Amino acid sequence: MDVFLQAAIEQARLGQAEGGIPIGSVLVHNGKVLGAGHNRRVQQGSAILHGEMDALEQAGRLPTSVYRESVLYTTLSPCSMCSGAILLYGIPKVIIGENQTFMGEEALLKARGVQLTVLQDHDCIAMMEDFITQHPELWSEDIGE
Amino acid sequence: MDVFLQAAIEQARLGQAEGGIPIGSVLVHNGKVLGAGHNRRVQQGSAILHGEMDALEQAGRLPTSVYRESVLYTTLSPCSMCSGAILLYGIPKVIIGENQTFMGEEALLKARGVQLTVLQDHDCIAMMEDFITQHPELWSEDIGE
Repeated sequence: MDVFLQAAIEQARLGQAEGGIPIGSVLVHNGKVLGAGHNRRVQQGSAILHGEMDALEQAGRLPTSVYRESVLYTTLSPCSMCSGAILLYGIPKVIIGENQTFMGEEALLKARGVQLTVLQDHDCIAMMEDFITQHPELWSEDIGE
Repeated sequence: MDVFLQAAIEQARLGQAEGGIPIGSVLVHNGKVLGAGHNRRVQQGSAILHGEMDALEQAGRLPTSVYRESVLYTTLSPCSMCSGAILLYGIPKVIIGENQTFMGEEALLKARGVQLTVLQDHDCIAMMEDFITQHPELWSEDIGE
């Protein structure tokens, strides 16, 4: 398996072990992880720290030129907020663990020229299916439904 | 002047006094401010705490039903990240101080049914014009350019 998707999954499992929503993400530049994060809604009472947002925040302030050569890995299709962050910084490529349990703003990202790869990874799918079954209200809150 | 735009401007000036980027925002529900925030890129080394994101974060976890009856005030036209957050939570109305110094994703928001009011407030415009003149590189970083 892709080592960076594996790192994103490890972030998701870390969040799950903390009692949180199991979604993880890593920002990668030239083969190096600049930031690794996971959803922190439960842990920090956060409305904005989705996995992708947390990875960007953990990476800290970066020159625009770095974002534009980076790849964002995420275990789940990015929602409109996280997709907007991808567009803000001009991240050109996103590797998505799966989009079967949730379809984010992939059409918008593609229309803006972002290259997407969806892996339909079985671990990512199983992790979200279990979580959504067990915590449907928490999941609805996280995606604003 | 609208008391809530004034509150957003006060947030922007607070950020400016901290050495930060002068953009502020408040989330309002039934005439009550649920969260007030300002850009914290400089203060916290944050890549995601734009004014609107900070207001949402300060408001904390809220039921979806509350977001869907809320109004977001912001001193500046919301970028793609902040617009994505508005769409995620289904905030139906955004009051924008100005869009002359920066045009965010207003077309996308309108296309998705968000009601926008742009005030072209002179204080908001002057505040951003001064900031952009004095700190062009910091501004470019904040909008991913």
